[in-house]
Parts: sequence; structure tokens; C-alpha cells
Amino acid sequence: MKKDINVGMIGYKFMGKAHSQGLTKLPMFFDTSLNIVKKAICGRDEEWVKQSQEKFGWDSYETSWEKLIARDDIDAIHITAPSNFHKQPAIAAAEAGKHVFCEKPLALNLADARDIYEAAEKYGIKNQVGFNYRFAPAVKLAKKMIDEGKLGKIFHFRGYFLQDWIIDPDFPKVWRLDKSVAGSGSHGDLGAHVIDAARYLVGDFKSVTGMSKTFIKERPVAGRMTGLSGSSASADTPKEPVDVDDATCFVCEFENGALGVFEATRFAYGHKNDMYFEVNGSKGSVRFYFERMNELHYFNAEDEEGLQGFRLIQVTEGVHPYISAWWPAGHVIGYDHTFVHQFYEFYEAIANDTPTCPNFYDGVKCSQVLEAVDVSIERKQWVDVNSL
Amino acid sequence: MKKDINVGMIGYKFMGKAHSQGLTKLPMFFDTSLNIVKKAICGRDEEWVKQSQEKFGWDSYETSWEKLIARDDIDAIHITAPSNFHKQPAIAAAEAGKHVFCEKPLALNLADARDIYEAAEKYGIKNQVGFNYRFAPAVKLAKKMIDEGKLGKIFHFRGYFLQDWIIDPDFPKVWRLDKSVAGSGSHGDLGAHVIDAARYLVGDFKSVTGMSKTFIKERPVAGRMTGLSGSSASADTPKEPVDVDDATCFVCEFENGALGVFEATRFAYGHKNDMYFEVNGSKGSVRFYFERMNELHYFNAEDEEGLQGFRLIQVTEGVHPYISAWWPAGHVIGYDHTFVHQFYEFYEAIANDTPTCPNFYDGVKCSQVLEAVDVSIERKQWVDVNSL
Amino acid sequence: MKKDINVGMIGYKFMGKAHSQGLTKLPMFFDTSLNIVKKAICGRDEEWVKQSQEKFGWDSYETSWEKLIARDDIDAIHITAPSNFHKQPAIAAAEAGKHVFCEKPLALNLADARDIYEAAEKYGIKNQVGFNYRFAPAVKLAKKMIDEGKLGKIFHFRGYFLQDWIIDPDFPKVWRLDKSVAGSGSHGDLGAHVIDAARYLVGDFKSVTGMSKTFIKERPVAGRMTGLSGSSASADTPKEPVDVDDATCFVCEFENGALGVFEATRFAYGHKNDMYFEVNGSKGSVRFYFERMNELHYFNAEDEEGLQGFRLIQVTEGVHPYISAWWPAGHVIGYDHTFVHQFYEFYEAIANDTPTCPNFYDGVKCSQVLEAVDVSIERKQWVDVNSL
Amino acid sequence: MKKDINVGMIGYKFMGKAHSQGLTKLPMFFDTSLNIVKKAICGRDEEWVKQSQEKFGWDSYETSWEKLIARDDIDAIHITAPSNFHKQPAIAAAEAGKHVFCEKPLALNLADARDIYEAAEKYGIKNQVGFNYRFAPAVKLAKKMIDEGKLGKIFHFRGYFLQDWIIDPDFPKVWRLDKSVAGSGSHGDLGAHVIDAARYLVGDFKSVTGMSKTFIKERPVAGRMTGLSGSSASADTPKEPVDVDDATCFVCEFENGALGVFEATRFAYGHKNDMYFEVNGSKGSVRFYFERMNELHYFNAEDEEGLQGFRLIQVTEGVHPYISAWWPAGHVIGYDHTFVHQFYEFYEAIANDTPTCPNFYDGVKCSQVLEAVDVSIERKQWVDVNSL
Repeated sequence: MKKDINVGMIGYKFMGKAHSQGLTKLPMFFDTSLNIVKKAICGRDEEWVKQSQEKFGWDSYETSWEKLIARDDIDAIHITAPSNFHKQPAIAAAEAGKHVFCEKPLALNLADARDIYEAAEKYGIKNQVGFNYRFAPAVKLAKKMIDEGKLGKIFHFRGYFLQDWIIDPDFPKVWRLDKSVAGSGSHGDLGAHVIDAARYLVGDFKSVTGMSKTFIKERPVAGRMTGLSGSSASADTPKEPVDVDDATCFVCEFENGALGVFEATRFAYGHKNDMYFEVNGSKGSVRFYFERMNELHYFNAEDEEGLQGFRLIQVTEGVHPYISAWWPAGHVIGYDHTFVHQFYEFYEAIANDTPTCPNFYDGVKCSQVLEAVDVSIERKQWVDVNSL
Repeated sequence: MKKDINVGMIGYKFMGKAHSQGLTKLPMFFDTSLNIVKKAICGRDEEWVKQSQEKFGWDSYETSWEKLIARDDIDAIHITAPSNFHKQPAIAAAEAGKHVFCEKPLALNLADARDIYEAAEKYGIKNQVGFNYRFAPAVKLAKKMIDEGKLGKIFHFRGYFLQDWIIDPDFPKVWRLDKSVAGSGSHGDLGAHVIDAARYLVGDFKSVTGMSKTFIKERPVAGRMTGLSGSSASADTPKEPVDVDDATCFVCEFENGALGVFEATRFAYGHKNDMYFEVNGSKGSVRFYFERMNELHYFNAEDEEGLQGFRLIQVTEGVHPYISAWWPAGHVIGYDHTFVHQFYEFYEAIANDTPTCPNFYDGVKCSQVLEAVDVSIERKQWVDVNSL
Repeated sequence: MKKDINVGMIGYKFMGKAHSQGLTKLPMFFDTSLNIVKKAICGRDEEWVKQSQEKFGWDSYETSWEKLIARDDIDAIHITAPSNFHKQPAIAAAEAGKHVFCEKPLALNLADARDIYEAAEKYGIKNQVGFNYRFAPAVKLAKKMIDEGKLGKIFHFRGYFLQDWIIDPDFPKVWRLDKSVAGSGSHGDLGAHVIDAARYLVGDFKSVTGMSKTFIKERPVAGRMTGLSGSSASADTPKEPVDVDDATCFVCEFENGALGVFEATRFAYGHKNDMYFEVNGSKGSVRFYFERMNELHYFNAEDEEGLQGFRLIQVTEGVHPYISAWWPAGHVIGYDHTFVHQFYEFYEAIANDTPTCPNFYDGVKCSQVLEAVDVSIERKQWVDVNSL
Repeated sequence: MKKDINVGMIGYKFMGKAHSQGLTKLPMFFDTSLNIVKKAICGRDEEWVKQSQEKFGWDSYETSWEKLIARDDIDAIHITAPSNFHKQPAIAAAEAGKHVFCEKPLALNLADARDIYEAAEKYGIKNQVGFNYRFAPAVKLAKKMIDEGKLGKIFHFRGYFLQDWIIDPDFPKVWRLDKSVAGSGSHGDLGAHVIDAARYLVGDFKSVTGMSKTFIKERPVAGRMTGLSGSSASADTPKEPVDVDDATCFVCEFENGALGVFEATRFAYGHKNDMYFEVNGSKGSVRFYFERMNELHYFNAEDEEGLQGFRLIQVTEGVHPYISAWWPAGHVIGYDHTFVHQFYEFYEAIANDTPTCPNFYDGVKCSQVLEAVDVSIERKQWVDVNSL
């Protein structure tokens, strides 16, 4: 008989939905060691949270995160609220001895991320940060290949994350465009995923230099509940300055001597959620595009001469990471499956008391790179990542 | 307060899993009119069915489909067992006044399909057949575009469904390779989806001529529970003749004068679940590959001269069919989402007493084409589809 | 010192230009055994032929093909005129002991093709037919791989040739739409290339059945010099019936048991010159698209498990067929280079008295398949190719 | 009757071949105003130059560039030798009143480039620099679209040029890896093309910051005639330090406020000649990959909602730049055709006394960016491009 683990979740919008479905599907497809119970969902707006509780199948709801954390029947906390709501609940949960799964970026800034990390360390709780792109089977496969030495010594990482949803100057200043709530713009929201992928695949960053742009300097004020799909404002909506970046790009050197090129923007028409990276090494290359997340491109320099070429691996076979839990080969999976995978790892780590990955340390390291890029932009100089 | 509708499901393997997850996710993402209850799962092997009940979240289980259908607390039946287990339960369920959702192909042959259809008509139950590929948002979008006249008069349909999992001669004779269980080989399993897509997009078939091949004439006997992933047999496993097609291809004329080319095979290395079609008309073309199911290729002959080209539409935007229920643009969905979509339509049709689509009539029409091709192969002649 | 070989060419339009540039570039890039001299160009319209002589760099011109063939200083004849102008000059040239390079299809019909072939055999001249698509390095590489057994036993060939230039009903009846000049429509013009590729890669055809369509039954009469780019006619241009196919498709069995699916059409919007084929065997697959002629897709079923996928081979490396004559890797070549390659082979075969390939026998075999398909359409039955 | 223009060419290897074929094909396909005569080819090695004269069809040869320039019967000079052989002949030719077409990069460094430019200005000769990638029809089309405002205000340019031919540490130090001959490594050889494309499409650079790497610090000495295809050295070949970059990347701001990201490397396995760029603006995007040089990707944000997507424009239609001179739609062209196009423009500018483009000023501006990046790397700071 499996032991129960009771989960409480803070937040109920985009990420709340993603987490709810992930927790629901997890036991249907994977053999988990624990019996994961969607115990309580928490949000400030009672009507919404009640509705979400029902829709997403949670046992109960709370309107105060403090209450949620105080509940004795909660073992683990998922934090899916905007970035400015990560620090306090994460630390409180750690103090209360609850395991914490926190969305990325870990915090509004490096100092806060460190505080969260230190609390988790101090209270010895399991912790993970929601870099879900790592859990696309193709990305996991790339990691495995690199670890096995299939790419040899790494020379290059290039990655970008391109979207196109805020090009219209009348698109309102939603929370993701508000520094006090989101911490930064495309850099922290999108760039964070690429930076994490680079750390995962290539290793730690040494130094960076970059630049950023806010193409649209002010935008109409957004209604409170406006999400990603915030429709354009009317002509007489008052405007506010935008205080986050629309686009950020930078180059870096990795500790191991590899070169990196990065770009994150919401101003690239035609790209919807185009997270991409390529790694080149002394024995081959791999390439990934999230919008075709079931595929990994692989060039093997040891293939027979004259027959070499990038292989389009459909990462949908039973031998591939996580796939045996799902469908036969070629029956592609989607964005939401990455959540199931990351929760599987998190709860197995809790069950077996093994390390989580990516954990809050990884969250701190990502924030360190994000901040180093910001400092380099401010100072117009190279910044040593470890100096921060 | 929503009315309950209690579902019973026959079968618990590949399709049983697909149906279970679909019914589970449906209310989490869509506003359904009914409260869909996963009441009972049914299978012959008690241990397996019990395990499946728990894993997939059904309220109870049965080991006899007759008992399941006899239960007063069951309103709708899903039939996900192999094709030789469709007819009896489907007719019995209809007689019992239960709505029936049946996997494709509707039956082992055209005559059986007609019997099932007639029972459904006679007892006036809602019925749908599991042509889930119709419910990929990209396919639905293609249908919408054709209905709106965006392609003009249709000249061509070409489609194939290519897989590669039985090329090894030591791969055992699993149930899908057994005519008495599966009805036919790649033709009925894979070709059926392409034929249905063609009917959906272009219209009814007039006449066909084709050919088929069984490349591997005999195979090792399979163990009872061997599924798709049946590993290769040992050297001394006895062999049995294979009585289904490994590959079938045919050309056709549609009622509206368009030309069609079709192919289904499990002998095309590198293709995992490669269901593809392209439609060419007097104003443009559309093209779809299931392995990149979030994309639709569209050529608009009315685009500005010199700037024409196939558009790669990422069918992941809120304006696209079903997508507003899921994620922001570019956050791709997978195979399992098509099940949610088809169940959404089925249960809304029940709730609102509107027609289902594709229903058992569509199942009969598909079986008619399958059989016409078989007859054309046998007779080495063109066969008028409506003559059967 | 190299021996001269003097070339005379009949025709001066699309193919005349392609041949002229091919003969010009040949000695600049390849080490030829003979010194190829562009001696005389021949066409009926003196003004045009004179202009072409100058533009394409021929030493002289003729306005009568009989005269051209009669000239003592001509050693080899290129026939690039429409199909109805192949037979007489080809036979006359053979009788005159001149080597003949003839454009495809070899003749208007199978009987004529046989006559041409027999003349060539009788007079022992070197002969080649212009199936230039064989000479794309990627196609040559595919052939080499199949010959080496890299694909194993062949199960499937599928190919099509799609264009879209005559969909407008006001597009005039140019010579390619006139049976008396072109022999057939898309079948003989486009399908011939795919059929030849299939014979080249898979082997001879056993039996066929197919169908064809003429979507636009009559078209405006074309002016005499109207070529491919014939602009649409004015409203009061008189119309004529179209007596060739707009589209033809068929299925076949090859002598070696493989299955084939073929389609040729000029009614597929978005496809400009889309000649495609894929071959599936027991060890792997290859795929080619002419519009990306520098690429060959290759799936090797013996690649490491979990890392398999279609390789995108850029056939632009020094180790690839013909490439060492051109540019460094990745510096792609185009359509016209295939002409250089085929002339290189033709003139080396003359110089070294070795067999040409594809020769008039291959031309006959292609015509035999074309005609078998036509007969199968007429009779609505399967036709044994060798019965014709 | 057309006026003759007599051409002399310095250099006879990769670029010498490319120029020779370009000049040969030009009058066969384009209506030129002048009669272009391949008068004399010049190189230091008499045997090689004689052989090249014959092979490439030049009227005569010289072994001294001074002599070539001194010849009265030469009107225009093509400089195709390595970068350290550009300055002296270019200035001498200008002084002698001869038009000059010089390969890129214009010179070893910015100062030399300026000297060359000033000489050309002073003597009023027509001058052009060999940025041949501008003359791919797809790139020309992109330029036209941007000039017409189809992309709106430009936000982003990202480009790279990736190759993989020197990853083997035993690959010898050929001239392209020798700073005294080549000026720089991948930066000047490959990056120059991307920088020029960015200037062409987006406009001038304002400031840059970058980094570079030499992954292999020393290499075997190369034999004198070793070219791109230099095979690996034997074990006892002495080694020399490599003094150029293996890879360089940088970010920039353009004068118009757009952001740019650039990378050039010869250490990216699987990429043969992968020159790529994408431009994003307020109305759409365009994207280009040289290895598929006949294609341009275009996203039009004004397309109908729900039907938007990157169009894959096959830039092979008569309405596209330069194409009407070549073949029917879909009959793709290659690398060498870009040389024909650039020479067409150069000689038409001479004939009509109109401005050339890209001229030596463009060569200077490219060198200025190259050098600004080098300085930024040295100083580890942002560099204002116009400060140099």
C-alpha cells in the first residue's frame, strides 16, 4: 500500500492549470512510489479558487497561503504564482518542513533566490524549480548523450527563446511586463529557460556581456485578471511606462571554455514559443526546437563518410526518456507532459530521499546568470558571473 | 448543477488508456454540459482490469461486458477492445439504450459494420467512431478552410500512413497481424484513418483499385498479452502464417471528380506514426503530417505574386479549434489531446441532442471503402464503392 | 592533345539552353577525354536560331535538321526539340553514324521509341536519353547506396512529380498540352522522370493499374512561340479541346516484389517542380525532393538504438558523386549542373567506348511503363508491362 | 553592336574558378550591354596559370599582376587572390584607371580597406566588392520586401555562418588560418558575409561587443598549394601556432535601434556552409539559409488571423530577382549563379555609368564592423563602430 503525500498548490492560472493536470496524469501513466493527493489549492480570489478547485480536482481550497502552509495535512507545496509571490511562501513552507516545488524564475532577483535556497538548505526539505523544458524527452536525451561523451568536448552553445505576443503597442501592460511582479521581461521569463538548458547541457557560466531593449516604452494599463491573451486596449485606456526588457541578448564564456550566444524576445513575429538550442562538440552536434519538442537533431561526426548528416530523431520510442509510460512510437506528446515528468522526478526524490534536480541551487545559479547579464548591460562591460 | 453521465468502458490496453486519460482531462480543460463519471471499466482478466481501474481512476470494474451493459447505472459505453470485440457489445449496448463510442475500424468487415450501424439507428442512441485524427486541431482547421471554400474545387487528395514496427521477420504475430481479431492489417488499422480523413475533407469515394502485399508470410506465435512492443521471439518459437496485409495502396476517384492516392504500410523504415495527407484545389493546398500534428501547411494561390509559398501554420493559437482550452500559442499538444476533443464532441452531442460526427454511418462508409479496395485487389479490377 | 568531338544540337528553347550551358561548363569543371566543340545549332526559325547561336556560343547554325545531320563535321547530335521531333532525326542521325543524345521521353509512344532504339542498335552508335534527374548527386548517391545493399531488400517505392502552372483555365494550350506534339501530358513529361528513377533504383516494373484526369477540358489556343511562361489568354481567344492528361496516378508491382505508388500532376498548388521519391527497404530508407536537390534523407535501421532518425545528408562534399568538380562542401549546386553531369558521362562513354546509361533501351522501358499505364486506364484493368 | 570590355583576373583557385564560370555564363543568360571578354588571367605559378587559362577559357595569361595592370587592352580587374593580395593590385589598378571587382573582405584590416576605397574614389573607377550572398535571389527579395516596408520597423537581426571543416586538430594551417594572409579567421571570412547582409537589410551598425576563441592553438604546417580540402597532416609534420579566431560572436545595436546577434565559426559539426539570417520587424519576419538558397521564409503579420505562418517562398519564379534569366519555376539554382548576378550588376553599372553596389565603401563599412568587434574583444568593452 502506497503512502500518501498531500500537496497544496499556490496559484491557479496558467501554471496552476499546468501543475494540476500534471499531478492528475502522473499516477495514470507512471508507477509512483507515493500516492499523490491533490489536497488543497490556494488563491486570493475565493470565487476563482473555488471554481479551480472543482475544475482541476483538488480536495479543498484556501484563500490565504499562510493558512495553506500552516495546515498539518499538507506535505508539499507547489508555488505557481507570479515571481513576486515566490519568496515568502517558499521560505515559510521550508520553515514548516514542507517540500517545495517552485516555478521559475526562483525569485525576483538573485538575493531573494539565495534566501529561498538557504531556507531550503537549512530546513532540509526537498526542493525543485520548474525548469520544465529539461523534461522534454528530447532534451533529456541530449543530456544523456552529452554525459556519455557522444558530443566530445563542447565548443558552442547557441540558444534563443522567441515569442511574438506583445508587438502590438496597444497590448496592455500585463503582469509579465511589470518589473515589481515579474522581476524582468523576456530575459527572466524566456531567457531563464535557455540559460538553464545551457547549464544543464554545457555547465556553468564564467562571464557574460549583453544588451537589452524595451521597444515599446509605455503601454495601456491592464485589467486585473488579464493574462497572456490580454486583448488590445481601447484608445482611452491610460498608459504606464514599461519597466522590463522586451528583448535581451548576450554572449558568454562557459567555465569549460565553450562559447555561448543567447537571445530572448517577445518581438519576433512568427515565433510562438520558439525555445531553441544547439550544442556543437568535437564529435558531433545536437539541436532542439521546443515547437517540435518530439524531435532531436543529432549529427554524429563518426558516421560513415559521405553518409553523414543531421539525424532527425523522433524521441517517441520506448527506449527514450519517459516515453515507455506514454504511447507507441510516433504518437507525439506535448507541453503538458513535461510537467508530469518533472513531478515524477520530484516525488520519487521525496519517496527515496534522493537529490532533486533542478533544485533551488540551480534556481540560484540561473538567477546569477540573469543578474550578471543585467549588470553587464548596466555597466556596458563583461561581468564575471561568480563575482555576484 | 450538471447532470451526471455514467460511462462504462470495454478494454484496458492501448486504447483503454487513451480513453481513460481523455475522459479524465476533459472536464479539467473544457466546459462540458454533463458531469462525466468514469463509472466502470471492463476486461476479461480480473487482475489486469482491477489494476487498470485503480490506475486510470474508474469507480468500479467488471469482467463481463454483458454485465457491464446490463448495469442500470451505465449511460454510455466506450468500446476499445480489438475489432473482433466490437460488434456484439455495440449492438447489445444499443439495444440497452446506451450511447456507444466505438473504436475504429467499426467492425471486422462491412457487413458487421452495417449491423452495428443499423442497431444504433433502430434504438436511436448517440454513436461515434474513434477516428481521433479528425480531432487534431490542424485537421479540424483544414476542414474548416475547405468548407469555407479556401481551397476552391478539389483536384487531388494524397495520403499515406507509414509505420516501421514489424519489419523484423522475428517480430511475433501479435493480434494486429491476426485477421480473425483485427480484420485486416495496415489497411484497416492505418489506412482507415487516411480514408476517413479523405471522406471528411474531400467527400465520398466513387471507385477504387489497389494492391496489397504481405512481405513476411509467417511469423512466430505471440504470447497472449503481447502488445505493440512485442519483443522478438526466440529461435524455437513455432510460426504461423500471417493472414493480413503488410502494406496496401490504391488509387481512387471521388464522387466530385477528384483523384486520390493512398498507401498504408508497416514496412517503411524511419516512419513511426507518419499519417500524412495533402489536398490540392483550384485556390490552394493544405498538407498535414501527424508526427508534427501542431502544424498545417497552407498554400494560398491568392497571396501576392512573388510572395506565395506554403505557410507553416502553427495550429496552437487561441483562434484555432480546441486550443483556447489548452495553453498559450506555441505550447504544443500531443496525440492524447485528440481523445479529449472527440469525447468533448460526443458528450456535448448527447447533452444537446445534436448529431455526432463521425458517427457509425461514417464508420460504415469507411468500411465500405476498405472492402472495395480488398475486392479490387482480389478481382484485379476497379470496384465501384457503392456497389458493395 | 585531346581529340575534338563536334556536336550539333536540334532545338533552342528551354532544353536547348540547358544543353548549351551544360556543354560549355563541362570542360571548365571536369577533366574530359575529348575536346567537345559546340559546332552547330539547328532550328527552323532562322532569326531565333541565329540569336541562339550567338548567345549560347555555337560555331554555326542550320535551319534544317537534315542538313545538320548530313554535315561531315558533326560527330554527335543532341535532340532537344519537342517529343514529336525526336524520331526522325534520331533515326537519321543513327543511320549517319552519329552518336545521339535525345531528350526524354524518347518518343511520342512505345512503338516509336522502339524504332529509335533499334536504329541505334543497328548502327552501333552511342546513345543516351536525357533523364537528367538521375544525375543529381543525391540521386546518384541513393543508387550507390542501394547497389551496395545499404537498404537491403526493397519493399516500397513512392514518388510523385507535382507542378502547378496550368491550373488557371485561361492558361493557353501550349505545345506541352497538345498530344500530337508532346505525346502525353503530365504523365509523359513529369511521370517519365519518376518512372525512370524507380527503374534506376528499384528495377523493372511488372504490372500497373492507374487513372488519369483532364480537369480543364478545353483551353485558349496558344500563339506559336508560347512556352512554359505562356501568359493567360484574352477573353476572345478561341478554345481547343485538351487531349492530354492533367494528372495521372498509378500503383505497380515491381519484378522484385516491391510495391510502387506514382503520381504526376500540374494541378498541385504550391509545388513548382516537386519531383520526389522515397525507397523503403529491409535495412533503411532514402528520400529525395528535387526542389532541395542537394539533400538526401537516409534512415539507417542499423544505427544505435534510440539514436536513429532520418539523416539529412547534404550531398555537397568532395566524396559525393560529381561534387569534387565543383565547390567546397555546402556550396550548393542547381538544376543546370545535372546536364553537365549527364554530358560528362555521355562523352566519356564515347571516348572510352563504354556503355552509356540511361540509354535508348532505358528510354524504351520508360515508354513501355508509360504506355502500360495508359492501357490500364483505358481498359480499367491491371496491365502486365511486358505484354506490350 | 556591343562594345567590348576586356577583363583581367588575378588569382586562379576557388574564387578564380567562381569568377571564370560567372563571366562565361553571364552573356548566355543575361542581356548585357557590354561584350565581356575574358582577356587575361594572372597568377604567379606559370604552369598552373596556363592550365587555368585553358580550362576556364581566358584569352591569355600573365604571371605578374603589375604587368596585367599595365596592359593597355585590359579595362577591368577582378581580384580573387587571398586578402593580403588585395591592396596593392587594387590601388594600382585604380591608378591605371581600371575598374576593380575585389573579393571580400576588401583588405586585411580597416586602414588598408580605407586606402583602397580612397584610391578608387580618387581615380573615379567603378568598384565592387564580392559580397556574392547578396545576389542570391532570396536575399535580393528580402531586401526588396524590407525596402517596400513589408517588415515595418526592424527590431531584430540574428545571423550566423557555421562551417565544420577544421575541427580535426591535425587539419593543417592552411592560408585561411594564417593572419598575415587572411587577416582573420572565421570572423573575416564568414562573419563578413553576415555583417554585410545585416548592413544591406537593416542598416549601419552603431556599437558592438563580442568574444572569440581559437580552440586549436597550433596546427601542422600546410604544404603550399593546400586548399580547403587540405587533408590531415602526418604525425611528424611540424606545428605552428594558429593566430586567427576559430569562432567569433558578438551582439550589436544598429543605428536604427534594432538589436543584432552574430556568430561565425568553423567548429559547428554538421554545418557545411550554413549562412543564415533572420530579420524581425513590426509587420513580419524573413529568414534565409544559404544551404537552401532558393527559399525565403516570410511571416506576414497581416495575413488572416488563424491562417498566419511562415511562408516557404521558393524564390524560383519568373517574378523573382534574376530568375527570368534562368529556368522555369522550381528548377533551382546554386552557389555559382550568385557570381553571374553580381557580375551582371557590375558590368551594367560600368556600361550605364550608374553606382555599383556593394562597392568599396560597403567594403570599408564591413571592415569597420569587423575591426570594432576585434577591438571590443581586446578591450572587453563595447565599441562605437564609428569611433574607428
